[in-house]
Amino acid sequence: MDKVLVGIVMGSDSDLPVMREAAEILDQLGVGYELVISSAHRAPEKSSSYAKEAIANGLQVIIAGAGGAAHLPGVIAAYTALPVIGVPIRTGALEGVDALYAIVQMPAGIPVAAVAINGAKNAGILAAQILAVKDESLRKRIEEYKRGLAEGVEKKDRSLKTLGIEEYLRTKK
Amino acid sequence: MDKVLVGIVMGSDSDLPVMREAAEILDQLGVGYELVISSAHRAPEKSSSYAKEAIANGLQVIIAGAGGAAHLPGVIAAYTALPVIGVPIRTGALEGVDALYAIVQMPAGIPVAAVAINGAKNAGILAAQILAVKDESLRKRIEEYKRGLAEGVEKKDRSLKTLGIEEYLRTKK
Amino acid sequence: MDKVLVGIVMGSDSDLPVMREAAEILDQLGVGYELVISSAHRAPEKSSSYAKEAIANGLQVIIAGAGGAAHLPGVIAAYTALPVIGVPIRTGALEGVDALYAIVQMPAGIPVAAVAINGAKNAGILAAQILAVKDESLRKRIEEYKRGLAEGVEKKDRSLKTLGIEEYLRTKK
Amino acid sequence: MDKVLVGIVMGSDSDLPVMREAAEILDQLGVGYELVISSAHRAPEKSSSYAKEAIANGLQVIIAGAGGAAHLPGVIAAYTALPVIGVPIRTGALEGVDALYAIVQMPAGIPVAAVAINGAKNAGILAAQILAVKDESLRKRIEEYKRGLAEGVEKKDRSLKTLGIEEYLRTKK
Amino acid sequence: MDKVLVGIVMGSDSDLPVMREAAEILDQLGVGYELVISSAHRAPEKSSSYAKEAIANGLQVIIAGAGGAAHLPGVIAAYTALPVIGVPIRTGALEGVDALYAIVQMPAGIPVAAVAINGAKNAGILAAQILAVKDESLRKRIEEYKRGLAEGVEKKDRSLKTLGIEEYLRTKK
Amino acid sequence: MDKVLVGIVMGSDSDLPVMREAAEILDQLGVGYELVISSAHRAPEKSSSYAKEAIANGLQVIIAGAGGAAHLPGVIAAYTALPVIGVPIRTGALEGVDALYAIVQMPAGIPVAAVAINGAKNAGILAAQILAVKDESLRKRIEEYKRGLAEGVEKKDRSLKTLGIEEYLRTKK
Amino acid sequence: MDKVLVGIVMGSDSDLPVMREAAEILDQLGVGYELVISSAHRAPEKSSSYAKEAIANGLQVIIAGAGGAAHLPGVIAAYTALPVIGVPIRTGALEGVDALYAIVQMPAGIPVAAVAINGAKNAGILAAQILAVKDESLRKRIEEYKRGLAEGVEKKDRSLKTLGIEEYLRTKK
Amino acid sequence: MDKVLVGIVMGSDSDLPVMREAAEILDQLGVGYELVISSAHRAPEKSSSYAKEAIANGLQVIIAGAGGAAHLPGVIAAYTALPVIGVPIRTGALEGVDALYAIVQMPAGIPVAAVAINGAKNAGILAAQILAVKDESLRKRIEEYKRGLAEGVEKKDRSLKTLGIEEYLRTKK
Repeated sequence: MDKVLVGIVMGSDSDLPVMREAAEILDQLGVGYELVISSAHRAPEKSSSYAKEAIANGLQVIIAGAGGAAHLPGVIAAYTALPVIGVPIRTGALEGVDALYAIVQMPAGIPVAAVAINGAKNAGILAAQILAVKDESLRKRIEEYKRGLAEGVEKKDRSLKTLGIEEYLRTKK
Repeated sequence: MDKVLVGIVMGSDSDLPVMREAAEILDQLGVGYELVISSAHRAPEKSSSYAKEAIANGLQVIIAGAGGAAHLPGVIAAYTALPVIGVPIRTGALEGVDALYAIVQMPAGIPVAAVAINGAKNAGILAAQILAVKDESLRKRIEEYKRGLAEGVEKKDRSLKTLGIEEYLRTKK
Repeated sequence: MDKVLVGIVMGSDSDLPVMREAAEILDQLGVGYELVISSAHRAPEKSSSYAKEAIANGLQVIIAGAGGAAHLPGVIAAYTALPVIGVPIRTGALEGVDALYAIVQMPAGIPVAAVAINGAKNAGILAAQILAVKDESLRKRIEEYKRGLAEGVEKKDRSLKTLGIEEYLRTKK
Repeated sequence: MDKVLVGIVMGSDSDLPVMREAAEILDQLGVGYELVISSAHRAPEKSSSYAKEAIANGLQVIIAGAGGAAHLPGVIAAYTALPVIGVPIRTGALEGVDALYAIVQMPAGIPVAAVAINGAKNAGILAAQILAVKDESLRKRIEEYKRGLAEGVEKKDRSLKTLGIEEYLRTKK
Repeated sequence: MDKVLVGIVMGSDSDLPVMREAAEILDQLGVGYELVISSAHRAPEKSSSYAKEAIANGLQVIIAGAGGAAHLPGVIAAYTALPVIGVPIRTGALEGVDALYAIVQMPAGIPVAAVAINGAKNAGILAAQILAVKDESLRKRIEEYKRGLAEGVEKKDRSLKTLGIEEYLRTKK
Repeated sequence: MDKVLVGIVMGSDSDLPVMREAAEILDQLGVGYELVISSAHRAPEKSSSYAKEAIANGLQVIIAGAGGAAHLPGVIAAYTALPVIGVPIRTGALEGVDALYAIVQMPAGIPVAAVAINGAKNAGILAAQILAVKDESLRKRIEEYKRGLAEGVEKKDRSLKTLGIEEYLRTKK
Repeated sequence: MDKVLVGIVMGSDSDLPVMREAAEILDQLGVGYELVISSAHRAPEKSSSYAKEAIANGLQVIIAGAGGAAHLPGVIAAYTALPVIGVPIRTGALEGVDALYAIVQMPAGIPVAAVAINGAKNAGILAAQILAVKDESLRKRIEEYKRGLAEGVEKKDRSLKTLGIEEYLRTKK
Repeated sequence: MDKVLVGIVMGSDSDLPVMREAAEILDQLGVGYELVISSAHRAPEKSSSYAKEAIANGLQVIIAGAGGAAHLPGVIAAYTALPVIGVPIRTGALEGVDALYAIVQMPAGIPVAAVAINGAKNAGILAAQILAVKDESLRKRIEEYKRGLAEGVEKKDRSLKTLGIEEYLRTKK
């Protein structure tokens, strides 16, 4: 089993269907992680403890997802020098714009790396890119993954040209 | 000197020109307060300690002002059962909308009472209204204050009718 | 039966499915309340009378929920010195952003304490926190409630670690 | 002097520099009006009384301007069957978007006719258009005014063609 | 049959389910109207002709509804001195905010009276309020209608108090 | 078969149900086109090659559709002097507002012609209007198409007048 | 003198300082144009006549700039089959977002090609790109212009590397 | 001199006053960097070459700042497996919201780590945090820096308590 290098923290278990995409891409890229539920507001001591002990526990990157007044990534960033990636979760009337602003607009001194609303997959890739700074073989796997994306586009393009619109859409379903 | 019942906390000393309006109206209404600078992100231990010890220190209400990813009111609310009033500060490219969302969109369980962007004066009045729940004479002073507002409107209205637009605007300068 | 200390007013009976969450948490915390339907626009006399007589009727806090051009909380705040909590209701094309702005952006002198869009539960908790200023046993119940929130997070976290993503999500349904 | 048919109400004397444009165009179109300062929040009794007595006092249209949580037009509309025109005033961090939403998003049953942010001049013209429903000569004056607008455009267009960009901009200053 | 005093114009027949609410309330208030489909962009000549001939055809008020880049109310206002009421239709990705801005932000000189997004019912009431400037019996009907609104609120309030939340919601369905 | 003059490029095959509307209207107007799937981010080399070779390949206009951080139209515009039309696709939490801003707010020097969110049909018409600069018969077909739009409106208007609201809506389904 | 191929229309002479940038880049690229002031609302007949006669007058492209409820580009597009480019002007409380929405969100059938808020220069370049569909030498000039942009970037980059931040910023002033 | 590990790229030299803050904090933390001006749109070849050669040139992290339709960070991320940090620059009518959306809403597969609008300083700190994954002494310097932030807050808090509001604000100027 891979050593746990990435902590994936979420403010509520309702975030799990989104945040699991971070876990899945890390699995695919061969990066060890752990999943944690901890709320900045309902469980503040747990959240700050987790952040304070992260380096000692061997973590290298933390991914934190939250919706609404999404304070979790910022609270974790306040307590650790590790890079923290924030995932704004789409929820409620503001559809994640509140979470995006609450994550990305951090004050000077304490950065959080924001990805797209519900962009947990990219949070996982970004964590891998960060770890690849000291892991050449991981970088190769990321480059491989990117080549796969380009090939997937190429394949779809050829498929559309071969099948035409109607047939393509029918096949895709 | 009045007993300190209200803590006025701000995330940065750049918030002071706004947050002082809370202090001034509390002075006017005869409510004791203290002013604290403490950042949820740059000084997280100080912020959580302040919140955890607030009841023991005799506080009854906390007013917290912050701009940008304004986590301070929520972080304080996470650590105390006291009512917490949040003041979104107008700053940066989003002009306080980020702070408003980060303050008002708290998750179920941990409320923050949001006032208008830069609405520190109303935060002070709201704190006084809360304290008036057990202080009848303070309620009388608030009612007096409200009557003064109505009289001020009446006076301006009469003045405009007497002077006309041009003269009124000239006098006002 | 508990003495009625909190008035829960809503602008329309279509707000009831949201506003009942305020009633439920007050029930849970042992705080007496009454439910009122009264519109700032369709029933302005009823609304202003309710506000003007609130103190004489023994109320200590008023919670008002409304959608769209949500004037009800502000209209009530205009007529009473009691603390007024506003709940923006999510409705129509603007999804409650209109109601949020119409509630939170009150002018200096007449505050309304805004909670999240559809945040009626937090309005109830905030009302209880306000009443706890003079009711130590209520404060204990609120602190108990907050501890329960933290324990709930802890329990879910352990459950996720035990079950894994797939099993956790299956169990949760 | 013209009979007073239009009430121009504003929530604060800080709205006067904008709201005077309504007065000026009504002067130009020969429609009688009165100017009133009255706040929905700071002077609610004055505002509701004004609205309730408006028909008895001979008013036919009310123009109400307010900024922030701009409740004044809606409050007046609640208390009278007269047509009410609302002018959202540009002020504070939200630049009048809050006032626009608070004015235009009125619930079914109680309309307010919203004009542009700071659009007091158009509020005056709209009031005149409404009065022209029973005043043919006023309609002629409005049509005259509109012809003047078209001629003004034509004149500027010819002037630009004659002078060229540089000269036109120099002359205009 | 009532004389046609109000033109209800819509940019597309997809607006009909919303715009019919204007017709229904005018029926209820006893005001004659006609329904017209005409697009500012797809049928510009029809739209401008309709506006130019409106006064000659005996119309007193025009209600125009449109979605997206909602130019129809403004185009009609450009060609007539009658009061024009604009109804922003909720459609597409911007949910009617585009239509609201395109209707309410008219330039100085050519007002449109904007109502809420999808607020066709209020457009009808506003048209009636305008016509009531010269029709005392219509004003009485509007006042009657408003009393009915207040009574409806009162009745719902009593019903909720009698039935309680659960029973009220069950009955309502 | 018509010579290929228009390239219709989309960032993902999930854009196809929208982008096909550009193809369909070009079919209707007798303009040759090709459909291409190519992502600015996942297949950057393919995208830049396509743009660089477009003129040599006989293209005259490029339509590019993308959602989210919609860079595809801008990336293509960077590599060709052909007119580029951008279609913001409605997707994700921001509903296409992100794509609109990412497409329309191009820096001075490198324009993209933005159409409405999901406005692929108009992108096709605009491409035809551009090609009609040197194809008089195509312009005639566009004018014919526009006359058809006006006639369609006229027909619906007559139909509504004949059938009435209820019958019209019933028939339409 | 160059034959007039592009009409640059603006809704108000206050748009001239922005719209002149379209004229200047067309001068630079050797494309003939004319400048017109005409308002969709204040001078609707002039605007529609201009559009209807544009083809007969030899125009090939129309650029239309307007602020607020910016109907001018759409009104012109309604009356002509020529490609119409819309420039949203930054003005008033909504800073041009209103104009952007009113220009870009055109209904299916009648496109307007929107450029950035205040993006008149890009409107000029886009007009030239459109004309280059039948003017190979103009396309060469556009390609030359684009090469110049790339060289300008390269030169600034070298300059920054040579001078360093401080010296570069000092020199630039 | 420190080895160049971080590339700081900006789309225009007008971004330099903001982007220099990234350089300054990297200087302070002892991390080598280089400054590059390169536009995704005006100099696309330069931008893609820079990204493609970044790893071979020894870079470990790229910071890219851009305003408006800010494609630069995404374009760079498309061509390299290195972690890319995006800085939305505040400029133009949308005040950087356009740049924020264009940077943060990247599609699945190609992440960009967004920081606050104009948050170049945090981009620098984040780059250092990433490099600290393999540089323990750099992590110590970051932790030292964070302790300095907390001490700065503490010092200001004591100063405010000692001096009082008036004196504090006077001294600060």
